[in-house]
Amino acid sequence: MNVPASPEQPTTSDLDESAQQSDWRPWERLGELAEAGDAIGVENFLSKLGPNDQALALNRLDEEHYCAVLTLLPAEEAAEILRHLSETQAAELVDSLEVSDAAAIVQEMTSDEQADLLGDLDDDQAESILRALPPEDAASVRELAAYSDDQAGGLLVREILRFNQKSLVHEVITTLSENAEEFRDYDVQYAYLTDDDEKLVGVLPMRNLLFAKRTDPVADIMILDPLSITASMPLDELRDFFDAHHFLGVPVVDDNHKLLGVVHRNAVDYESTRAAENDFLKSQGIIGGEELRTMPLWQRAKRRLSWLSINILLNIGAAGVIAVYQDTLSKVIALAVFLPIISDMSGCSGNQAVAVSMRELSLGLVRPTEMIRVWLKEISVGLINGSVLGLLVAIVAVVWDGNPYLGLVVGVALCANTLIAVSIGGTVPLLLKRLGFDPAVASGPLLTTVTDMCGFFLVLGLATAMLERLI
Amino acid sequence: MNVPASPEQPTTSDLDESAQQSDWRPWERLGELAEAGDAIGVENFLSKLGPNDQALALNRLDEEHYCAVLTLLPAEEAAEILRHLSETQAAELVDSLEVSDAAAIVQEMTSDEQADLLGDLDDDQAESILRALPPEDAASVRELAAYSDDQAGGLLVREILRFNQKSLVHEVITTLSENAEEFRDYDVQYAYLTDDDEKLVGVLPMRNLLFAKRTDPVADIMILDPLSITASMPLDELRDFFDAHHFLGVPVVDDNHKLLGVVHRNAVDYESTRAAENDFLKSQGIIGGEELRTMPLWQRAKRRLSWLSINILLNIGAAGVIAVYQDTLSKVIALAVFLPIISDMSGCSGNQAVAVSMRELSLGLVRPTEMIRVWLKEISVGLINGSVLGLLVAIVAVVWDGNPYLGLVVGVALCANTLIAVSIGGTVPLLLKRLGFDPAVASGPLLTTVTDMCGFFLVLGLATAMLERLI
Repeated sequence: MNVPASPEQPTTSDLDESAQQSDWRPWERLGELAEAGDAIGVENFLSKLGPNDQALALNRLDEEHYCAVLTLLPAEEAAEILRHLSETQAAELVDSLEVSDAAAIVQEMTSDEQADLLGDLDDDQAESILRALPPEDAASVRELAAYSDDQAGGLLVREILRFNQKSLVHEVITTLSENAEEFRDYDVQYAYLTDDDEKLVGVLPMRNLLFAKRTDPVADIMILDPLSITASMPLDELRDFFDAHHFLGVPVVDDNHKLLGVVHRNAVDYESTRAAENDFLKSQGIIGGEELRTMPLWQRAKRRLSWLSINILLNIGAAGVIAVYQDTLSKVIALAVFLPIISDMSGCSGNQAVAVSMRELSLGLVRPTEMIRVWLKEISVGLINGSVLGLLVAIVAVVWDGNPYLGLVVGVALCANTLIAVSIGGTVPLLLKRLGFDPAVASGPLLTTVTDMCGFFLVLGLATAMLERLI
Repeated sequence: MNVPASPEQPTTSDLDESAQQSDWRPWERLGELAEAGDAIGVENFLSKLGPNDQALALNRLDEEHYCAVLTLLPAEEAAEILRHLSETQAAELVDSLEVSDAAAIVQEMTSDEQADLLGDLDDDQAESILRALPPEDAASVRELAAYSDDQAGGLLVREILRFNQKSLVHEVITTLSENAEEFRDYDVQYAYLTDDDEKLVGVLPMRNLLFAKRTDPVADIMILDPLSITASMPLDELRDFFDAHHFLGVPVVDDNHKLLGVVHRNAVDYESTRAAENDFLKSQGIIGGEELRTMPLWQRAKRRLSWLSINILLNIGAAGVIAVYQDTLSKVIALAVFLPIISDMSGCSGNQAVAVSMRELSLGLVRPTEMIRVWLKEISVGLINGSVLGLLVAIVAVVWDGNPYLGLVVGVALCANTLIAVSIGGTVPLLLKRLGFDPAVASGPLLTTVTDMCGFFLVLGLATAMLERLI
């Protein structure tokens, strides 16, 4: 859940607490307090923990106990704690709460947090929570939930300062001072000014109020016709937008230019970090949502298997190439030693090329259409690295087996296959992006399968061609 | 470079421009303008591009031309453009500038940007730029440069609003209005109040100025004894801090509680995204700084090789196990088909466990000391997935070779090796973290080497044990 920045500044307090010695087990004490139904105790104890220790403590409690903790807390406190957990963990907790308790907590969240959370819940649980919410809240959540986390609509906050452009400076200031408490949780760097039809007409930096005559209409000191975006703007465009403009937030309008809410820079930064972290998880084969070790065993096993089973089929396909050349292999058994080396090393070279391409794609330094350019850049590197690696493995082969032709075969094979690997590794992410697939997921397996096949084919094909020299 | 948020809001403008059709080649026009030395033209052209297109255009120009572009621009404009580039690209550009031009641009940057940039430059270039800067600027940069990007000291901004606590409300307001232009680039949500010894005594939310009597001393409306951090606080603690507190920035003090500057939430979010992206790059074998395809060929090849050469040595070590069992292999050549499958599949299972552990580490849901707990969680998953994969590969072996014992050997080997892989994969990141190594870099190779060795040993050892059944 993203953390909208609000300007309150408490005095020194729990800062030191979060530095805890590593043998300290907060969940045990928390469990006892929950067991005893000690609401005050639970609240005080959690308030002393840093966000990491809160996450850890809740993560280690069994379902019965963490449900107790969340229901013992005032809904607002519970919402505050969920806000600091990873979305996966928050959803895990809320999924097992009673609908009424869950609804009470959800009501205390900002609109974007509600949309995020409900999107991550079981559909049934989400639906029953929505039914338990006040109709207008439910309606607005459903509206936002239509957008994914990587669109402006999924990130916008409805809780903003809105004024009619006709209001006067002193009216705004009074509203501010009267509701200081409530507005503290909003991003009150700007107020947003609308006309009588709720259409966005201007933005008012709070600072301007300092220099204004209190009897002026705010329209005089507002920024007219400010930049705004639509709810459908995707995350990468939002990143570009906040790169290009130093705003803390940008107003979101619908097709009729009605003000829907504001997307904060923090929300965009938060989602960007998540996207990068997910790319890492996916590249390592954790697909379909991140895994926490507290999740049910079967769910964890199933998710990982879905990925592994595809991989093993690809592997068996590649190994088929070896089967074809069994005779050669049985005559020159030494080749079997080098097959895994060739396959693994080509995989490494290819993955490097994949990583560079994905990085340049995310920086906008390469376009999905520029496959030729990338390919040329890669083969040059591939030639150098392929030659070095090929030479290295050739020397090993000769030293170990004594037969220079064995060295020739494995050396040439590794060199050639490195070229193939970097060519595929560099271009496949661009291709997948063009075809609308997720490069982080698909690049790896595609790459290894093809490079394995080519690698085995090169080694064994060459060996077959010069068999009499090898025996 | 991080983008400190400042509240100015320009009116609608270049927003649409950044959506460019994919065959559009901004660098060509830019090159012509630079060639012609048309300063105004260059400035106007770049001002029309979104940050991505600016990055792309500069990325595609040759050295002579992008140097021309950056020197034709007013230093402030150039600094603004560098601010939106990736640190790697910015450093690449500035490295090839004349020292005097580079220094002029560096002077227009905020202190944290200067420290970032100079840290990424060649030492010689950085040193000569520092000598070209005004002494006091140079001194402050050197001071910050002592801290890395993932410490508060490397992220702090010196350009903040400081007032002596004795100043009056109206004095602050006047200073604000007189220097509105200059302060626009600062984070002016707070002013920071010091005593006569420059020690931090309070924080003043701008908003409070609205409700204050103009003749009061600011000390009356400031937040006394605010939270502050030291310049040595590492990135992950900064993340926790901003998770726990809704601030836009936090003051940084030295050991004598003298105010050094402010770390903004944006800077921390930015570095977090970078850290996650780097984990992905490292896990794919891009070590020692990210690679752009515009970098010199030799540099790109060398960096990738340094990683590959370690890997191939590990690989050769693992393959040694196969060499030991050559006799068995030559008698049951079918085994050679399954060796790469076992090795690759175990690698996949292990990598999944690595990813989950690194994720839980970064979320604080597991402590580096909890290796037993992680291990128990992993073997349960390993048992299920190992059995399924083992069964699958066994069936393939039997169907293809007709010998049930071959199926038994490869099936049992893959199942057992999956258990080993997830055990290592799950615990190694924790171990590396405890020993102070970077899990993202070292986990992969360590894992594959061990799992390869074990995999080969299991298949060939089992086969040797029941050799007569396999022939």
